[in-house]
Amino acid sequence: MKQLNLNADLGESFGAWEMGSDAELLQIVGSANIACGFHAGDPLVMRRTVRQALDAGVSLGAHPSFPDLQGFGRRAMQIPAAELEAMLIYQIGALAGIARAEGGVLTHVKPHGALNNMACEDAALAATVVRAVQAFDPSLILLAPALSQLQRVSAAAGLAVGIEIFADRAYTDEGNLVPRSQPGAVLHSAEDCMAHVLRFVEADGIVCASGKVLKTPFHSICVHGDGPQAVSAAAMIRESLQEKGCRLVPLPAAVLG
Amino acid sequence: MKQLNLNADLGESFGAWEMGSDAELLQIVGSANIACGFHAGDPLVMRRTVRQALDAGVSLGAHPSFPDLQGFGRRAMQIPAAELEAMLIYQIGALAGIARAEGGVLTHVKPHGALNNMACEDAALAATVVRAVQAFDPSLILLAPALSQLQRVSAAAGLAVGIEIFADRAYTDEGNLVPRSQPGAVLHSAEDCMAHVLRFVEADGIVCASGKVLKTPFHSICVHGDGPQAVSAAAMIRESLQEKGCRLVPLPAAVLG
Amino acid sequence: MKQLNLNADLGESFGAWEMGSDAELLQIVGSANIACGFHAGDPLVMRRTVRQALDAGVSLGAHPSFPDLQGFGRRAMQIPAAELEAMLIYQIGALAGIARAEGGVLTHVKPHGALNNMACEDAALAATVVRAVQAFDPSLILLAPALSQLQRVSAAAGLAVGIEIFADRAYTDEGNLVPRSQPGAVLHSAEDCMAHVLRFVEADGIVCASGKVLKTPFHSICVHGDGPQAVSAAAMIRESLQEKGCRLVPLPAAVLG
Amino acid sequence: MKQLNLNADLGESFGAWEMGSDAELLQIVGSANIACGFHAGDPLVMRRTVRQALDAGVSLGAHPSFPDLQGFGRRAMQIPAAELEAMLIYQIGALAGIARAEGGVLTHVKPHGALNNMACEDAALAATVVRAVQAFDPSLILLAPALSQLQRVSAAAGLAVGIEIFADRAYTDEGNLVPRSQPGAVLHSAEDCMAHVLRFVEADGIVCASGKVLKTPFHSICVHGDGPQAVSAAAMIRESLQEKGCRLVPLPAAVLG
Repeated sequence: MKQLNLNADLGESFGAWEMGSDAELLQIVGSANIACGFHAGDPLVMRRTVRQALDAGVSLGAHPSFPDLQGFGRRAMQIPAAELEAMLIYQIGALAGIARAEGGVLTHVKPHGALNNMACEDAALAATVVRAVQAFDPSLILLAPALSQLQRVSAAAGLAVGIEIFADRAYTDEGNLVPRSQPGAVLHSAEDCMAHVLRFVEADGIVCASGKVLKTPFHSICVHGDGPQAVSAAAMIRESLQEKGCRLVPLPAAVLG
Repeated sequence: MKQLNLNADLGESFGAWEMGSDAELLQIVGSANIACGFHAGDPLVMRRTVRQALDAGVSLGAHPSFPDLQGFGRRAMQIPAAELEAMLIYQIGALAGIARAEGGVLTHVKPHGALNNMACEDAALAATVVRAVQAFDPSLILLAPALSQLQRVSAAAGLAVGIEIFADRAYTDEGNLVPRSQPGAVLHSAEDCMAHVLRFVEADGIVCASGKVLKTPFHSICVHGDGPQAVSAAAMIRESLQEKGCRLVPLPAAVLG
Repeated sequence: MKQLNLNADLGESFGAWEMGSDAELLQIVGSANIACGFHAGDPLVMRRTVRQALDAGVSLGAHPSFPDLQGFGRRAMQIPAAELEAMLIYQIGALAGIARAEGGVLTHVKPHGALNNMACEDAALAATVVRAVQAFDPSLILLAPALSQLQRVSAAAGLAVGIEIFADRAYTDEGNLVPRSQPGAVLHSAEDCMAHVLRFVEADGIVCASGKVLKTPFHSICVHGDGPQAVSAAAMIRESLQEKGCRLVPLPAAVLG
Repeated sequence: MKQLNLNADLGESFGAWEMGSDAELLQIVGSANIACGFHAGDPLVMRRTVRQALDAGVSLGAHPSFPDLQGFGRRAMQIPAAELEAMLIYQIGALAGIARAEGGVLTHVKPHGALNNMACEDAALAATVVRAVQAFDPSLILLAPALSQLQRVSAAAGLAVGIEIFADRAYTDEGNLVPRSQPGAVLHSAEDCMAHVLRFVEADGIVCASGKVLKTPFHSICVHGDGPQAVSAAAMIRESLQEKGCRLVPLPAAVLG
């Protein structure tokens, strides 16, 4: 019986500003990537999100970012490796501390936004992310997009890697995400997202926009909570995978078996 | 043989801005209170400071603050208790994460600046600090000024308390620090600081500006690294205490024996 | 024919986080208090808000705050007078610069949140606000709650004062707002807000929760854009005032005639 | 009689952290580039620096930056053009507001750090800087490195351009600064800096590290205040230029005659 994980980025409110559909998504996903205060989240939001995730039986991951609250961590920044490594440990440690205060532990790390995008293409940056995770806790899973440099470098360094695909994004023949600026880059309807994911499961790999199949294992499917159909898409993906006989589990079970 | 601890606030540089005499002080003190990024310190400064402290055999404490980089944590702020508690856990966790990455552990927590001053007088605020420390790790020592509400509330809650006196500050008859705005509030010369500390040791308590003695145990003496005579004052205090037969130790040994 | 102004706090989005109903409110109010980046607003939000306000014929005011993005400027802070004065000039100047870039000018200043609340009770703090406005441009109107220290100190210093009442808040017999923690402090339905305002207009003053009337001139009514009935309340207030023969104008016309 | 300007980056302290030799440099330079709070400077530092510059007869320029306090504005960031333009107007406006409060006016703008470096090579980014300056005040001088895209784009857009050379930096044959990572990139002794500048004056252009001369007019020489010899280098440059018959003036006189 195939085990799969659904993950989502949660805890992205900040101060007086609300964002996301955390309560609904926590009923759907098995793992949460929780913002650590550098692109979103504040200590109170983090603590509330950790509490809710633990109550829902959802595993906790750190979702560290470049320091860029105003840009939501989506702006490319050039930060010296030693400084970025320290920033990542800081963020992971902060979330781990809040998890500990709530009786939980972190199971994984997933870089956010521009940091994640850049680490998928730049092996040196990926290595910085890996060093930060290993320095903090080498038993953490690194959740990385399928076929990325981040996946490759993490695995080569001996980290447990959760390989991730995206439910709502089209892929190029090279296995990269089609840039958002291009038509068809993002799938909007719940039905399209569900069909997209099922094709991947049947093909045991990424089905590119061209129809080409890139064989790759994957452990986790990233779903989103923003946009009008996002929550229903996530729910539909969950149901259809279960109907196909998949067991939906937190990340450690999906990766470590 | 009496055991005493010397502590200092370290890691107060930020980005391109240097502050303090960390390298010198680390040869003198037994415990470091390390800024956690909210009033000073950034992840790289924190990591460097942790590394240097571990190399010097100096025990690591978190020095969390109100979120106030521009005001160096010295401005009074009114923050709801639940939010402040989460902020403190965030900061302690962040430093603990960096310590872990360097192979160290935290031994204590000392609130910074306005937060510390307010928690010394306000039992409800002190209780918030205590809850944060206990939620993160109830075995941590809380370093609190002698005779303060923070000391009293921490002890009543079952925390190990490191009782602290200040080498360079005059005390009122109530055991509070003479406000900086008053003449004689701060002792400037190394000799005066040394004599001040020795009087406390001999009196087994606080010798107030008036000459009155307030009996109190204490475990730790706070020294500073800023000001022209600060480092030499700290060194002189260390030597004179050793000459009097005190053993200077990290905080856990001073508090827990 | 009586001239009155409606004002609202606008431009309170930040980065990826949206807040408020600016487009709707700009069709209703005559003057906008625009966040300046310290509690909400970022340069892009500020520029967009200024552009929209100018297009709607709405006069521009600066809405400066304590530096507290995470707390939305609602936390009391103790900031030395010279520093706060400089912070206020900085914020007013920043918004004035953006207004200039869009071909507009500022007509008024209204302090935000905790700063406003504290300046309503503390004459020394009110004087700091007044000094900042006068240093930047002594011809600006200061928009201040009726019967507050801020109103009194501003007028005594020679500033043009726009006296403000709140459409959705109950008043104590002393003319203060009933604290939000008490029942009945905030009026929620559009009808209640409208009736509240009409009573003030008929009474030429504040009608307290007790029924007591505090005679006071007023130039402007503050309406809000958050909450389920807020926009319809604002629209209903506008219509009912017009039906009673009031002319609704930007702040300068209401204050300066 | 040749007129030249000396400029320096000033007001780079922040909160409790001091940086630079502002008082000394204000006796030497004719124009100050004042940090606007995004990489350094806070409102109080800005106001003090403006006051001191006006007292010294030094003309005021805005020194806006990417939003990056921790990185001192030295990290490359990718910010959408409309957002960066608004950020620059915000910073220029804030400083202009503080100047107005002190009875002064801005005469120029000089981008800081990574923003300046990138705008020297990237014409689109240079155009964003130019649009911000023109939107705020098209009569401001833009201070740009000789032979840069920023100079070229500014001039083509009709801005008055102050062309700048650096007293302590070696140049490549293409007129770029030798990267700091290469040996000889930075001149350290006061004598070397002075001789460097005098060669430029005699050659009516940039004398590259290779000895090659790139003919270019220039109006202003950038000196620094950090480093052991910086202030004496600046003073020596000032004296030697005066001995050679140059008149040292604020930027408007040097550029506009």
